[in-house]
Amino acid sequence: MSGPKHSCGIVGIAADSDVADAIYTALMVIQHRGQESAGISVFRDGTITTVKGDGLVDRAITKDGMSKLAGKVGIGHVRYATTGSKGNENAQPIAVKAYKATISVAHNGDITNYPQLKEKYMAEGRTFLTDSDSELILTLIAKHRVGCDDEVAAIRAAMEELDGAYSLVILINDRLFAIRDPYGFRPLCLGKVSGGYMAVSESTAIDAFRGELVRDILPGEICEIFKDRVESHPMERSHPHARCMFEWVYFARPDSVIDGIEVYQVRKNIGRILAREHPADVDLVMPIPDSGRAHAIGFALEAGIPYEEGFMKNRFVGRTFILPEQKLREAAVSNKMIPIKGTVAGKRIVIVDDSIVRGTTLKILVSMLRDAGATEVHVRIGSPPIIAPCYYGVDMKSRDQFVATKLSVEGIRELIGADSLGYISIDGLVEAIGMPAEELCLACTNGLYPTKIENEAQRPSSD
Amino acid sequence: MSGPKHSCGIVGIAADSDVADAIYTALMVIQHRGQESAGISVFRDGTITTVKGDGLVDRAITKDGMSKLAGKVGIGHVRYATTGSKGNENAQPIAVKAYKATISVAHNGDITNYPQLKEKYMAEGRTFLTDSDSELILTLIAKHRVGCDDEVAAIRAAMEELDGAYSLVILINDRLFAIRDPYGFRPLCLGKVSGGYMAVSESTAIDAFRGELVRDILPGEICEIFKDRVESHPMERSHPHARCMFEWVYFARPDSVIDGIEVYQVRKNIGRILAREHPADVDLVMPIPDSGRAHAIGFALEAGIPYEEGFMKNRFVGRTFILPEQKLREAAVSNKMIPIKGTVAGKRIVIVDDSIVRGTTLKILVSMLRDAGATEVHVRIGSPPIIAPCYYGVDMKSRDQFVATKLSVEGIRELIGADSLGYISIDGLVEAIGMPAEELCLACTNGLYPTKIENEAQRPSSD
Amino acid sequence: MSGPKHSCGIVGIAADSDVADAIYTALMVIQHRGQESAGISVFRDGTITTVKGDGLVDRAITKDGMSKLAGKVGIGHVRYATTGSKGNENAQPIAVKAYKATISVAHNGDITNYPQLKEKYMAEGRTFLTDSDSELILTLIAKHRVGCDDEVAAIRAAMEELDGAYSLVILINDRLFAIRDPYGFRPLCLGKVSGGYMAVSESTAIDAFRGELVRDILPGEICEIFKDRVESHPMERSHPHARCMFEWVYFARPDSVIDGIEVYQVRKNIGRILAREHPADVDLVMPIPDSGRAHAIGFALEAGIPYEEGFMKNRFVGRTFILPEQKLREAAVSNKMIPIKGTVAGKRIVIVDDSIVRGTTLKILVSMLRDAGATEVHVRIGSPPIIAPCYYGVDMKSRDQFVATKLSVEGIRELIGADSLGYISIDGLVEAIGMPAEELCLACTNGLYPTKIENEAQRPSSD
Amino acid sequence: MSGPKHSCGIVGIAADSDVADAIYTALMVIQHRGQESAGISVFRDGTITTVKGDGLVDRAITKDGMSKLAGKVGIGHVRYATTGSKGNENAQPIAVKAYKATISVAHNGDITNYPQLKEKYMAEGRTFLTDSDSELILTLIAKHRVGCDDEVAAIRAAMEELDGAYSLVILINDRLFAIRDPYGFRPLCLGKVSGGYMAVSESTAIDAFRGELVRDILPGEICEIFKDRVESHPMERSHPHARCMFEWVYFARPDSVIDGIEVYQVRKNIGRILAREHPADVDLVMPIPDSGRAHAIGFALEAGIPYEEGFMKNRFVGRTFILPEQKLREAAVSNKMIPIKGTVAGKRIVIVDDSIVRGTTLKILVSMLRDAGATEVHVRIGSPPIIAPCYYGVDMKSRDQFVATKLSVEGIRELIGADSLGYISIDGLVEAIGMPAEELCLACTNGLYPTKIENEAQRPSSD
Repeated sequence: MSGPKHSCGIVGIAADSDVADAIYTALMVIQHRGQESAGISVFRDGTITTVKGDGLVDRAITKDGMSKLAGKVGIGHVRYATTGSKGNENAQPIAVKAYKATISVAHNGDITNYPQLKEKYMAEGRTFLTDSDSELILTLIAKHRVGCDDEVAAIRAAMEELDGAYSLVILINDRLFAIRDPYGFRPLCLGKVSGGYMAVSESTAIDAFRGELVRDILPGEICEIFKDRVESHPMERSHPHARCMFEWVYFARPDSVIDGIEVYQVRKNIGRILAREHPADVDLVMPIPDSGRAHAIGFALEAGIPYEEGFMKNRFVGRTFILPEQKLREAAVSNKMIPIKGTVAGKRIVIVDDSIVRGTTLKILVSMLRDAGATEVHVRIGSPPIIAPCYYGVDMKSRDQFVATKLSVEGIRELIGADSLGYISIDGLVEAIGMPAEELCLACTNGLYPTKIENEAQRPSSD
Repeated sequence: MSGPKHSCGIVGIAADSDVADAIYTALMVIQHRGQESAGISVFRDGTITTVKGDGLVDRAITKDGMSKLAGKVGIGHVRYATTGSKGNENAQPIAVKAYKATISVAHNGDITNYPQLKEKYMAEGRTFLTDSDSELILTLIAKHRVGCDDEVAAIRAAMEELDGAYSLVILINDRLFAIRDPYGFRPLCLGKVSGGYMAVSESTAIDAFRGELVRDILPGEICEIFKDRVESHPMERSHPHARCMFEWVYFARPDSVIDGIEVYQVRKNIGRILAREHPADVDLVMPIPDSGRAHAIGFALEAGIPYEEGFMKNRFVGRTFILPEQKLREAAVSNKMIPIKGTVAGKRIVIVDDSIVRGTTLKILVSMLRDAGATEVHVRIGSPPIIAPCYYGVDMKSRDQFVATKLSVEGIRELIGADSLGYISIDGLVEAIGMPAEELCLACTNGLYPTKIENEAQRPSSD
Repeated sequence: MSGPKHSCGIVGIAADSDVADAIYTALMVIQHRGQESAGISVFRDGTITTVKGDGLVDRAITKDGMSKLAGKVGIGHVRYATTGSKGNENAQPIAVKAYKATISVAHNGDITNYPQLKEKYMAEGRTFLTDSDSELILTLIAKHRVGCDDEVAAIRAAMEELDGAYSLVILINDRLFAIRDPYGFRPLCLGKVSGGYMAVSESTAIDAFRGELVRDILPGEICEIFKDRVESHPMERSHPHARCMFEWVYFARPDSVIDGIEVYQVRKNIGRILAREHPADVDLVMPIPDSGRAHAIGFALEAGIPYEEGFMKNRFVGRTFILPEQKLREAAVSNKMIPIKGTVAGKRIVIVDDSIVRGTTLKILVSMLRDAGATEVHVRIGSPPIIAPCYYGVDMKSRDQFVATKLSVEGIRELIGADSLGYISIDGLVEAIGMPAEELCLACTNGLYPTKIENEAQRPSSD
Repeated sequence: MSGPKHSCGIVGIAADSDVADAIYTALMVIQHRGQESAGISVFRDGTITTVKGDGLVDRAITKDGMSKLAGKVGIGHVRYATTGSKGNENAQPIAVKAYKATISVAHNGDITNYPQLKEKYMAEGRTFLTDSDSELILTLIAKHRVGCDDEVAAIRAAMEELDGAYSLVILINDRLFAIRDPYGFRPLCLGKVSGGYMAVSESTAIDAFRGELVRDILPGEICEIFKDRVESHPMERSHPHARCMFEWVYFARPDSVIDGIEVYQVRKNIGRILAREHPADVDLVMPIPDSGRAHAIGFALEAGIPYEEGFMKNRFVGRTFILPEQKLREAAVSNKMIPIKGTVAGKRIVIVDDSIVRGTTLKILVSMLRDAGATEVHVRIGSPPIIAPCYYGVDMKSRDQFVATKLSVEGIRELIGADSLGYISIDGLVEAIGMPAEELCLACTNGLYPTKIENEAQRPSSD
């Protein structure tokens, strides 16, 4: 709820029958990763056809558009804008005509050396139609493919130039590749479904087909996906990893399994550890729906305190155009989340959420609980304080927006008006995920970046 | 989830400043009661202006439309079609020009003698432009208003002719009336907000303005609402009541209070009583999100069994145009609700939902849980078996659609593939609500109707 | 071009196969009579289905809408708003449910006693959903139909109450009636087409089907139209007539024949008479396209002066949202009509148009011709000066808008900057039409109205 | 009417105030050159902003889009698809980011060696996002600009590689260039308007601003346009020219002047020459509106036969979705053009049109005239028989579509059912235009192409 915004989602499928319907379905399952645009590319008879548009999948890809998408291999994308201005021109997949091939790509992540590479290639006389780092990826593959008919070598050469975060699905004519950057920032997994194989950002999309999660793609691995098998081209040398911890904390769906670890369990673990790190003597535990639900259940179980759904979330309140100037509406800023009075009145309460960015929403929710009669309101947060920007695909670009760069925890507690405030520790978070800290990107919580970023400190263990 | 569909929602506000923004906000809060169309009427300078359209509030009422809605008194409506074919012509509020007045009405409920009254008035040479029983209400008020300048008397005379369920907000020029039928089938409550008074289907809309729930409108009462007070015209003689039990079980938002009873508490009570009436020796209790959540929490608390959110609901899967013919998609019918494997695998589970109409969705969910490794799946339902149609505003019109008219409880258990199945008893439901059975409409569960309905049995206590 | 705006258009067809396609086609042919909304009603299996919407026919009636319109008898309408505010609620046909019948009407004209009749019926307790006089017509027919099963008698009784201009097509269940008011203000004609009969505002729609113009419907006549014949119910007593002269001068398409007189020939006659009444010693004659074309050809033929198309009209310039504030655009107000320099430079020119309402457009055109090098510009107008409002269906409601009520002909000449200005005389216009003046409505040119209008003078010969 | 379809239109403006409104206006004036998509690019503060969309100008460029277009220099485009599949991705202007510059181009014409150049550059590892030859032009300019800061030299180098037809307006950052290919296939002229200079496809757009036509851009010339002057970079060596004759015959608006010759006069000349080459003893001369109007006036003047507007064209009949299967509609295929019976009955008639491609429309029109009573129908055509495809920007790509490649003139006469048929001779056409044949492209009438085209004959005089 109060956490950072979503990243993008990608999917690629090769099968023994038309794949556009399955890609469409998979995009709906990973729709939470991006609602700004959606698109599908499929290959047939020497041609890649792409249909894309603004908005949710079922608006971006019309019935008419679907009717054009015949083909047994294809890729799809849902977009949350990080690099590149908004608007249809940056919707993905992006397809280009290149030497003896049409290439289409769908990308999740941010290329950190995009400006430098773009400048370099423009100085060679090349042109770019978009502001998207995904077009750069196409440029690099097309360039390296000349003089080498081996697509894997061309992709490998492009990866040598690219820095930063990228999970990719790529069509080169009828060949489908799924790729994860050497750090493994963003998830990407392989599934076997009836009649084919798929690569997709989150495993829940495989479950939607009652398919089988084969494994996660390895950091640095290039997988070629066929309808009846997967061929792997792993990295030759080992490389430090940096999986984004926020995928488990907030981005991914609870029913997904990332790098072998179930998201729902991580969140419950976070709640349990929070209950130990920051216990509270209260009457009930409540989540901020929907993001804090699993964390709160963990907290309640560990603390032995009853769990209640004390906030009602209005699913219909969204982008509304009405400005809040008028007197009657002033009191209504809070209509997206309303406390259930009979449940909270006279109670001491812990509320649990995944993260704090600005703190403004929490301040309103705490005040609403007090108005509804809560006698104490304690806040527990399932991630450490966010103090540094993300350069790897999350929409948290500026230190100015983080309340934790300006106030101490006590200061934030005062700001939001809580009786107590507890963040999970970095160590606690790492324990909850259950993977060594060196395998994770924790940069937004400790300021140490896995890759070289100008004017930022680098993680000791990384190259 | 698997229960009946929603009813309509209405709101009326009189204030010391423009009300359209507040009506719009209130409609978004009660949007769950109807998503088919929405509209607002306001009065100013001798004229009632109405803006309405298809779809959700923020699509039906555009920014442009809002700019036309100046006025300090007005009404609004969100519609779920029950009587009348779909389509813009039946969107509400409906406004007519009548003698010395423009009248606009927003209606929640069904007039049971609509066909008879319509026929009668057509035989007098009157015409009807719509198939909506709301137009009939306007016709009656306009007719009775001739020769009597007292609007309350005209409304009272119209109510004498009308049978069935109707909660109404009515503008007669600048006068705002809020009315509930003598049985009190549908809810309607009064709130005091900053600068004015409002009547609205559910009290949560008053909370959204941080206003004060004054009281529910009484069955049979006509309230005139002013910016600074409410004038009551209650029924003169007492009348049996028949509040729809489904408002507490399913329709209303958990944070609403209906006739003094909080919806969330009723649902928790139902869960507790279910746990006593149909205990289960299991490892965890799970809701069918979002409708069964409060029931499941009650069950878990009473039974002392851990509560888990073991189903992930996809909020983006909705009306999708793709036909499920293709092989790859066949397995994907279930992508709206996916079990969290790590949580359910190897577990004995109780799942709790509000009601069963056809049973098809539950059958799929039980099977998915078993696929995900659940060793036992027990189903508990927060309402008694539905065996009779509703004539009072709920979209359950035909006995053929109810699985409980065709199968015994054991037969339904077999159909959905559960290890056990338990419905709350009628007595248990009445206890959970906490109101005498004579005050409630339980017709869909016992076939005894509060009003005369052709070919249906009538409740003994009713007139 | 500079004349008054169009009236509405109506059509009704009965045939031995589905008629919606044919009605749609006919509406496109008479689209020039109204572009604000369009609609079609058809009858089948006891039901009248209506599809209507805003804008041109091919936008208002979608493919999806057409698919609902099965039936062998139906009516259609294109609307130019005269009475009633704009907007979908006033789109026609309007259909109502009445006693033992559904009635749908499409109307061209204005009911002059609409306010009085509406008030009278509201005082009897009736309601009106629209501000359209067409709804009143339905109310009257429905009222008079009670107690008399003879639809013709009911229509006749309604006509006794109605004053003003009305050409109507009406469906009463499966019966189709075509009606013209006793004055015959607006045209309506009968055609035989393959497989059926049609009534339509202009005969060109019959030609579009290569059908046969049977005859015009008589003023005051009620025709019932069957697939294989027409039954006539003429007026019993004679009545003065008042056919709108502007139908021939401007509204109707040149290829239509109204009351036996071809529109194109009338316009050529006007041009010839203008050439005699107001000769000019010039080098060439030019029309204001498209409205003045036939008039100009007549003038050129009579005067023996070459005809040239010296103005180029831009068919794409229409409703444009750009405000003319900016410097560069200031000069571009005239981009709808541009003179052809090589044709007009150094020439003495007569330009011919159908009428002058405000004179602003003509002023710009004259000035553009001079800029393009014309040495003399003479203006000839195919109708007498407009000095009085129309109450019979033309959008000229206020004396204030007519330049001829404020300035003499010499004053207007000066205003528009012409070297000479000549209007056809009233006698000349009557001669051009070729029908006795008593048969025509000339009220907008002489202020004498065929019917009683408050505060206006009445034509001596009329009752 | 029955001739080939339109080409594209382009405009570029530099001024001392914002230019987007003026570009929008100019695009509406040249809208007849392309109705498939429209767009505008403007430069300000280091950035080129582009707004474009499908359909007519006033749909493609919304009010919202216009609000983004601040800048004192810009270009615009209206598109009729010739190369490249339809759809928004090929809408123009197309803008790319290149080394130290953003470049945007709007293009009228076809690059004949596009496939070869595209293949060559893809083989160098370059990519193309669209199927539009306009993207290739951008690629070439960007490539040649590296290592040379002189934009004119880069454009010149690109022109050395390009074959075929191209009139261009190009923004390179804030510099505006207007360019015409060395053959001068498509028109482009320079105008001085209040506060600035413009280049535009047709001079009538300059007249719309009451500006001054300075001159046509020369074949092979590169003009840089400033707000207060134009700098010319003409070709160094002379080059054979090949102006498209169809611009005068059909494409351009009658009020435009191309290469010093007024279109309207050429069409009148064509009519006069036709009257001499193919006289007819008839009662009246009629145009096929709107395309044959000027030709018919010329014919009538030369022959001394009265001119009449005997066909009424329905401006509202366009893309209609209704299939002509049904019986009633079968007769209505002709509803776009209806003869005026009273004018044509009993008459011997010449009808004049600009060209014949397939002949199907003319066949229907002749038959309708006979049905309306014409005793003789003679057809005169303002261009020679079309026998060869156009590779230079006109949508006539295949010999199969031309009736004149399959039938003799006598055979065509028989097909269309005329009493006589006369095409203007090639010599007559050249005389009507008034420019030496060597200056014109007549390839579609004689099969001799000004440039090398595989499998086609080349014009002797061309290099």
